[in-house]
This record gives sequence, C-alpha cells and structure tokens, in this order.
Amino acid sequence: MKVAIIFGSKSDKEIMSGAAKALKEFNVEYKAFILSAHRVPEKLLEIIETLEKEDFQCIIAGAGLAAHLPGVIASHTILPVIGVPINAALGGQDSLYSIVQMPKAIPVATVGINNSYNAGILAAEILSIKYPEIREALYKYRKNMKENFIKENEEGVEF
Amino acid sequence: MKVAIIFGSKSDKEIMSGAAKALKEFNVEYKAFILSAHRVPEKLLEIIETLEKEDFQCIIAGAGLAAHLPGVIASHTILPVIGVPINAALGGQDSLYSIVQMPKAIPVATVGINNSYNAGILAAEILSIKYPEIREALYKYRKNMKENFIKENEEGVEF
Amino acid sequence: MKVAIIFGSKSDKEIMSGAAKALKEFNVEYKAFILSAHRVPEKLLEIIETLEKEDFQCIIAGAGLAAHLPGVIASHTILPVIGVPINAALGGQDSLYSIVQMPKAIPVATVGINNSYNAGILAAEILSIKYPEIREALYKYRKNMKENFIKENEEGVEF
Amino acid sequence: MKVAIIFGSKSDKEIMSGAAKALKEFNVEYKAFILSAHRVPEKLLEIIETLEKEDFQCIIAGAGLAAHLPGVIASHTILPVIGVPINAALGGQDSLYSIVQMPKAIPVATVGINNSYNAGILAAEILSIKYPEIREALYKYRKNMKENFIKENEEGVEF
Amino acid sequence: MKVAIIFGSKSDKEIMSGAAKALKEFNVEYKAFILSAHRVPEKLLEIIETLEKEDFQCIIAGAGLAAHLPGVIASHTILPVIGVPINAALGGQDSLYSIVQMPKAIPVATVGINNSYNAGILAAEILSIKYPEIREALYKYRKNMKENFIKENEEGVEF
Amino acid sequence: MKVAIIFGSKSDKEIMSGAAKALKEFNVEYKAFILSAHRVPEKLLEIIETLEKEDFQCIIAGAGLAAHLPGVIASHTILPVIGVPINAALGGQDSLYSIVQMPKAIPVATVGINNSYNAGILAAEILSIKYPEIREALYKYRKNMKENFIKENEEGVEF
Amino acid sequence: MKVAIIFGSKSDKEIMSGAAKALKEFNVEYKAFILSAHRVPEKLLEIIETLEKEDFQCIIAGAGLAAHLPGVIASHTILPVIGVPINAALGGQDSLYSIVQMPKAIPVATVGINNSYNAGILAAEILSIKYPEIREALYKYRKNMKENFIKENEEGVEF
Amino acid sequence: MKVAIIFGSKSDKEIMSGAAKALKEFNVEYKAFILSAHRVPEKLLEIIETLEKEDFQCIIAGAGLAAHLPGVIASHTILPVIGVPINAALGGQDSLYSIVQMPKAIPVATVGINNSYNAGILAAEILSIKYPEIREALYKYRKNMKENFIKENEEGVEF
Repeated sequence: MKVAIIFGSKSDKEIMSGAAKALKEFNVEYKAFILSAHRVPEKLLEIIETLEKEDFQCIIAGAGLAAHLPGVIASHTILPVIGVPINAALGGQDSLYSIVQMPKAIPVATVGINNSYNAGILAAEILSIKYPEIREALYKYRKNMKENFIKENEEGVEF
Repeated sequence: MKVAIIFGSKSDKEIMSGAAKALKEFNVEYKAFILSAHRVPEKLLEIIETLEKEDFQCIIAGAGLAAHLPGVIASHTILPVIGVPINAALGGQDSLYSIVQMPKAIPVATVGINNSYNAGILAAEILSIKYPEIREALYKYRKNMKENFIKENEEGVEF
Repeated sequence: MKVAIIFGSKSDKEIMSGAAKALKEFNVEYKAFILSAHRVPEKLLEIIETLEKEDFQCIIAGAGLAAHLPGVIASHTILPVIGVPINAALGGQDSLYSIVQMPKAIPVATVGINNSYNAGILAAEILSIKYPEIREALYKYRKNMKENFIKENEEGVEF
Repeated sequence: MKVAIIFGSKSDKEIMSGAAKALKEFNVEYKAFILSAHRVPEKLLEIIETLEKEDFQCIIAGAGLAAHLPGVIASHTILPVIGVPINAALGGQDSLYSIVQMPKAIPVATVGINNSYNAGILAAEILSIKYPEIREALYKYRKNMKENFIKENEEGVEF
Repeated sequence: MKVAIIFGSKSDKEIMSGAAKALKEFNVEYKAFILSAHRVPEKLLEIIETLEKEDFQCIIAGAGLAAHLPGVIASHTILPVIGVPINAALGGQDSLYSIVQMPKAIPVATVGINNSYNAGILAAEILSIKYPEIREALYKYRKNMKENFIKENEEGVEF
Repeated sequence: MKVAIIFGSKSDKEIMSGAAKALKEFNVEYKAFILSAHRVPEKLLEIIETLEKEDFQCIIAGAGLAAHLPGVIASHTILPVIGVPINAALGGQDSLYSIVQMPKAIPVATVGINNSYNAGILAAEILSIKYPEIREALYKYRKNMKENFIKENEEGVEF
Repeated sequence: MKVAIIFGSKSDKEIMSGAAKALKEFNVEYKAFILSAHRVPEKLLEIIETLEKEDFQCIIAGAGLAAHLPGVIASHTILPVIGVPINAALGGQDSLYSIVQMPKAIPVATVGINNSYNAGILAAEILSIKYPEIREALYKYRKNMKENFIKENEEGVEF
Repeated sequence: MKVAIIFGSKSDKEIMSGAAKALKEFNVEYKAFILSAHRVPEKLLEIIETLEKEDFQCIIAGAGLAAHLPGVIASHTILPVIGVPINAALGGQDSLYSIVQMPKAIPVATVGINNSYNAGILAAEILSIKYPEIREALYKYRKNMKENFIKENEEGVEF
C-alpha cells in the first residue's frame, strides 16, 4: 500500500474521489479511511501509527471548515502529508488557511480548493522519485495529456 | 486550579498575558502552559488528561496561523475551551477561521483577534455560574467599569 | 430554565434550531425568544433583565449582517453569551466579525458560521462545570459519537 | 446644538477630530461625547434620549472592531446617524461591515474607514436641506476646494 | 419632489424598489431615473443639475461592480447622496468599497449591500430634520415596527 | 505628446513616478496632470476633451480608495485608459476593485497595486502597434532585461 | 488578423465569447485558440511566436483559478496582453490577483471578472490608435450606446 | 544534488533562506537559482530541463505577487514542486492563491506564506521515502524538536 486517503465524513467522498481517480492513472495503490481529527482523535492516532508500519509512503487528507485533519496527521508522522481544502463555507478560504498556514517544522503540502485530483497527481510525483515505473507513468501521462489536449482542440474554436 | 492558559511559544506570552490579567481581576486561579499541538502533540494530550483530574474547569488556548491548538484541545476534553486567534499573518484572519470554524459537535468559544483579555473575562463568566464569589466579582467589575468610564470621561471632550 | 436562545426573526428559526437540538441531547432546559437589538431594543433589555432573575445561566444569540444582537446582550448581562454568526451576506464574514471582534471587557463566545448546533454543545459544556449530570451526559455523548463514528465507517470506503 | 459626535474612547479622539474640523468649516455647532455601547449602555441610552430634546439633528458615531456604537444609537433614535468605521484590526474591514450591514429599517449612513472628515461634510450636507446658511457655506466650500485644487496644481507636475 | 432614486439599468429595478417602498411609508415624494455614470455621463450631469433646481433634497443611487454612480453624483452636487452597493460580483464587496471609500470632502452615505430599503429610511430620516410630518411619520413607523414585531412574535417560538 | 499621466494629488507623485520612468525607457513623450474626479470634475472633463485633440493616444490614471478617476476618464474618451490602483487603505483591495470591475462597454486596463511602472510599460506596448521605433525599443528593453538579469545573477546564490 | 483570443478549455468558451462579440462590433478580425499554460506549454510558446509574425497586434487571454495564462503569454511577447479573470472559485478573486499582480516590467491589462466583453472593447481601443476606421467605429459605438441607453430608458421607471 | 531552490530576485534571498536552513538539518544537498518566469522564461525552461538530468528530485520555488514561478516550473517537469508564497502585497493572499489554485493535473505543493523553512522540511519528507538516511534524520529531528520544546518550556511560564 503506498498512499492513504483520509477524510472526515462520507459526505466528502465525492470531492475526495478525484485523488483515487488520479492515483489509478499511475497504478498507485491506495487505501481510503474516514477519520476525524475532532470526533475520533484516538482512532486517528492509532491509524496514523499503523500507516508507517504498513509501508504507506504518502498521506492525502481532505477537510473543510477549520480543517485540522491534515495538520494533525502531519504532527504525528514524518510521511509527506498532502492537504485538500474542501469548500464547506466561505468559498473554502477557511479550510485553505487552516491547512496551508502550518507552523514552522510541520508542513502540509497544500493543493487547490476541492482539487483532490491534484493531490493524487502530487502523491504520484512524490512516489516517482523512488519508483521508476511511476515516473514512467507520469511521463506518459503528461505526454498523453498534451496530445489529447491538442487533438481535442485541433479543430479550433469558432465564436 | 480553575483555568488553564495554553499557548504554543514564549513569543506569544505578551499577547496571552491579557487572559491572566483579566482572571486576576476576579481572583480566579489559573496556570499557564506552553504546549504545541504540532510540535509536542503527545505532551499536549498528556497535559489535557491531567487538567480534568486536577479540577481545571475551563481552558484558554491561543494560537496563530493554522491555529489548531484550541480545536485539538477541544477534541480531547469536554471542558469549555476558549480560543484566542493570534495575529501572526493576514491580520489574524487565518487563525480566526482555524479556531472558530470548528465542525459539528466540537465547539471552541472564540474571542477577538489578539484579545486574550476577553478570553479571561469569558472564563470568569463561565465559572461564575458555579462560583457565587466570581459572580459577585463580575457584578462589581462591571459596576466599576461603568463608574470609571463615566468618571474618566466626565470632563467631556473638546476638539 | 438554563439556556436562553435568542434571535431576531422567524426566518432564522431553521438555522438556530441546531442549538435546541444539541441542548436536548443533554436534557438541558431552554427557552427561545425572538428579539431584535435594533427593532425592539427596549423589549430586549426588558427580557435580558428577567433572564438572570429567572435563573437562566447561559444565553445563545444568533444574528446575521451587522449582527449586534449577541454583543448588545453581552453588554447588559454577565451571563456567558454564545454568538452564532448567521450567513445572510458575504458568506457570513460580516456577522462573524460583528460578533467575534467585541471590545475589551465584553466578550461573546463565538462559534462557527451557521453552526448553532455547536452553540448548544458549548452551552452544555459551560453548564457542565456546575451540573454533574450534564457533565456525565457530555462524556456519554462523546463516547457515543466516537462509537457511532467508528461503526458507521467500519466497512471502510471504496472509490 | 446641531450635531453630536460620539465615540468610545479617548484613544479615538485623534481619528474622530476630522468630523469636528469639517463641521467648523460650515460653522455647524457640535458637541462631542465619549460613550460606549458595551461599557456604559445605560449612560448611552440616557444621552441619546437627551439629544432629540436638546435639538440635535444629526449624530456622528465612530467605532472600531465589532463597532456596534452607530447601530445601537440608530436603534434608539430617528435622527440620521452617520457611522465612521475606525481601523483597529483587519484594516477596518470588521468595523466597516459591523456599521454598514445594518438590518432592514435601521440604517446607518456609513462613510469610509477612518474618514471622520467626510462624516462631518455629510452632516453638513444633511443639515443644509434645512439651513440655507449651511447650504451657502457648502457651495462656497466646494467652490473654494475647486479653486484651491486648481491653484495648488497649476504649476503642473514634472517627473 | 424630494428624493431622486438613480440607478444604472432596468435589471437593478427590483433591488432598488426597496427605496421606493420605504419612502412610500412616509409619503415622501420621489422620482426614479435610470442613468449610468459610464454610459451616459453627460446625461447624468444634465439631470444632476436639474435636481437642485427642481427642489430635490436627497439622492439615492444604487450601483454594482465598480459602482461609481453614487460618487460621481456626489462630486456634482452638495445634496446628500445615499449609496446602495448592489451585489453583482464578489458578494458585493467590490461595490461596497467603490461606494464607501470616497476621498476626503466628497462623502457618500453608504447603506448595506442590496439594502435599498434602508436607503429609503435614511432619506426619510434626513428629510425629517426639515419636515415635521416626516418626523412624525418616522416616530409612528418605529412605534408600529415595535408593536408589530412584538405582536408577531408574542406566541413565542418552539423548537 | 503621446501619453497622459493623471492622478489626484501631489501625495501620489512618488508612486506614480514609475509610469514616467518606464515611458522614458522608450522615449515616449508624456505629460502629467494632477486632477481629481471628485474635487474638480469639470476641470477633469475639460482636460480629457483636450487630450484627443492634442494627439494623446493613451491615458494612465492612478487612484486610491474609491478610485473612480480611471473609470470616469474612460467614460469620457475612447482612448485606452490604464488604471493604477494605489494602496491607501485595505492593502489596495478597494482601489483595485473600483478600477478593474468596470461595467460592460467601458473598460479600464488595470495593472497591479502601486505598479505604475507596469502602466508605463503597457502604454509603450500599446503605442508600439503604431510606432515601429517603440516596438524596436521594447524588443531591446526585453533583450536587455534578460541579459542584465542573467548577468546580475550569474555568480549564483549561496545560502 | 488583429486580435488573438486565447483560453484554456472549451468550458470557458461561453464566458470568453463576449470578447468576440465586442470585436465584431468594430469589424476587428480575431482568431480564437484553446491553449493552456500548464498542460501544453510548448504548444503555447509555439503559437505565441507565430502571432507576431502573422501580424496579430493584441492578445486577449482568459483564465480561472491560478490563471497564469495571460502572464505567461505576456512574458513571451511585447504585444499588449489583455487578461480576463474567470470566476472558477472564490468569486474570481484568485484569478483576478493571479492576472493583475504581475511583477515589474511584464504587465497584463486586466479587465473585470468574467468581463470578456470589456476585453474586446479594450482591444478595439488599443487598435484604434493605429486604425482610423476602428476609431471611427468606437466613436459611433459610444454614440449609439448613449442614444440607445437614453431611448430605452426615456419612458422613465415607475415603482 | 537533490533539491533545487528557485526564486526570482536577490531581494527574496532572506525569505527563501529558510528552505536551505531546513535542508541542512538533514544534510540534503541543494542548489539555489535566481530565475524569473516572466523576465527570463527561456533561461528558466533551459534550467528546468537540466534539473532532471542532473538528478534533482524536488524543486522549491518561491514567488510573490502573481507568483507564477512555481506553477510554470511544474508545467515543465514531473518532479514534485513545492511553492512558497512570498508576501509582497495584500499580506501574501495574492501569491498564495496564484500558487495553490493550480488547475487539474499540474499541482504545486504549497506551504504557508513566507514559510520557506517548511518547504525545506517538506522536501526532506519527500526525499525520505527514497533515502533511509533522510528518514532517520527526520525521526531524529522530530525527537529533538520535542525534547527541546519540552526542555525550553519545562520551567513553565508565569504571568
């Protein structure tokens, strides 16, 4: 297992599904957990401890509002933690700040509001420094992305 | 001991001193702790556990930036937690959001940016529902405040 | 009667119902009032005066826009006042600032935007320092919340 | 007496002096009061009641942070109330919102952040609908302003 | 004719109708104009010039986005100008700033976002300093508002 | 004369000097005017009318706060108007919105807050479509900028 | 060909169509391209290089979120680049900042959020300094706009 | 060489030095480059191409204002790119949005405003998934951090 995807409620599943979708593009194994920093903090710590032992190498965590989940996870592991601010109020400004403005020494790698797909891509990029097959898959993905982009738009656009 | 005052760094001592100053007005006992939700999470949990046992009845927690401290404390206790957003960036908007926008079931009683004095007053008000002497002290404080305000300004103001 | 729930219009009833719902979880008695700081200020003061006499011990007040209601109440009582910023414009940023940024000496315990449920929980936490049965109910609530959270999510989540 | 200038603390005197300065331009009588909506609410109401009796015709009120003063005054009088948001935090965004976003039926005529001078001009404009001499003074003021502006800048500007 | 209501497009008619509705409460005469500071600046100036001659005594102007209309009007008249920020983008923050942050000497009396009703009330308050019948109508309006508020809510509210 | 630089007060001269500095790089003629949309609106219109006649081809206008100057100019000319938001409050957010959010049909070409230098560059780019010598100067400027950047940083940077 | 309209996705076509609509008013030739600064950066550079050769004289670029497209284009050409912030999150505040706050020497002429129509008008104004027929068309457009505005609203507005 | 640190001007050196300081804690090799996405885009692309060849495995990029640098780099490499928003205006809100709100498929791992130290820590965490010695160093760093924190604060704090 390489990537853990953690979020606080089934209602966030749809928004967080982008992370899984992106990881599938690179055949990166992942496992998803519903855990809350505030409602089940002990359970969360228990799971975080197992992650390193079970060879997880990167954690994606999504949260809205005060959005402590990614930062709390980061304070209990040295694995890179990717934070996804979820828009539950204020356009997501609150969760963005709560995730990105971590204090000295405990970073969270923050991606765009609701942009869990990019969290998955970022996880793949991180893993690619160790796994050549993921690196190859990333090169191929970028190449395909470019070719598809050009193909899809080659007929131009008329107003 | 009735109130715990917790914050993450000696550099926040000045801003958090208002809480102690306010509590002294009402002879409310307090104890201050420097603890970080991100740097020493285990130590923080350890201290939180002792607070209820040692008869603390209210917790004031101040933090800047992502400002998880009050919310993390609240997730580990049912004591009322008062959060003080400290302005370390963005005028304190980041810490305000990180403290006030707590998810369902785990509130933090948030006061104004850098306004630890009000956190102390709020703690006294909370304790006053149990301790008649604090209630009396609050009535007296308000009365004095009003009298002093009027006295200080009775000569009027001239431009 | 232990908690007063005050807001300015029937149209806010739905949003403020969370406070009542939370208090019911702990069998905390409450009474709701529709009162406006701006439209019926004299009536508001009249009611505030009765609250202490009738043994109310905590006040929850919700308001949108300029949202003076919680602060005006706080200026007329030493009971702890919990403020609920209601989103009526600007994502609720206006009401949040108007409630949380109270001046020195007159705090309002502010919870998240539209989050009246947390106001109810906070009121219970405050009362729990005096009433052991509410304290027990809070411990039980937290325990149930954790067990339910884990049970609801024990089958894991698949993308 | 025609205009009351009200603010909450001697520390705001400097910022509020612009209102007096502007009124002097038009020989509009004014009286200044230091009063707080939160610290001395009863005294504030007492003074508001005297204002109409003593023939005040317009009220200028300045406040920072939660800035309830202008709105609380407006809820107790039908005199036009001009609000000056004072920048005490967040660039004055908090006080601006707290003053301008008044609910239906109780307006506050809001001017720019820290711009008490414009509050004075606005008061003069309001009074001018009744007092021809103030109207004349306003015409003259505008005329002088234009002439002075042009004179001061007639030599042009060189970079 | 006492009050001019000016706005830039038929599409704003609905939002601006509150001003007319409020003025009708006090039998204040008004006339509405659709004029744009940017599209028909010459026509706007032409109309502004007629307003004073035709005995208009107060101007209400509503605008969205860059929202120059109220300020441009204010620069061409000494009549009190009331500005209504219309929410056409950014929650109305853009129009609020564009209207309220006028430079020294040329104020606009700004009311809440989309709150043209309050612009009407404010206009009536301004006129009331000259017209005793409007003053009486305002006292009556406030009295009715209070009585209606209390009557409408006298049955209390149950959750 | 090719470019007019207009701003509202000598106190903005320093910030607006960047525009002149940039234009000098390309030997673009310019003339500066101190004019205010609110204080001397008639004078402003008078000058705008002369600009087209005197063969000005582009206008740079800087303003702070409500910052109507660029938009008002744009409403009276079809010359391209470049707006410079000046930071006089709120970090310049107010002037940025007031300048950039112009309504349909009357654009202002907005550059960064306090960034009058870029207004000068943009004016040169606009003029370059007509004047080959300015186009050449722009190519040279870019080339020099790149060479200088590389030269200045060729020794690398050591921490 | 005189104006290039560039944006990153077919999903932005509707919002960007305003630019084409405005250019058609003045018979300004344009060509639209779907290109992304991040997905096909090499293709973008390739196209930018052809633009000057093929006598394009102005570029309109629209983008949402981080919105680098206009700035990246501007860094590769001396043609004037007009940026259209597209609202894809945060009310468009993110794209507005990403487009307008360009560093010294590389300006983007920014118009209002989603306001591609104004980008088209601005492009016409820019071209008009070289092409007298566009200048004439602009004068006529303004004249028609004014006449139509007055005609459409001549029957006045009744509430 | 493992980590590239890239920023746009010598004036950012001080703020970006934190990244180097953090990497030194873990003996991670790094090399710093001053490069601008807007001023020397060709040079930037040239350097990015060499980075992968020369075995760089992670890139830290800091930028202020429109802050395109990290995103432009990310569009030309599959190496993980860490973005540091530098506060040059608006409290850093502009650069934060410009860096974090990257479109689908091209993420930038964003850290807090001016917090280059955390960018260094995050780079070490990313590298640690491949290099056991860095992983060990991270464990030790965390352990030391905790011990030092506790030691530094063991005497408690007195108000």
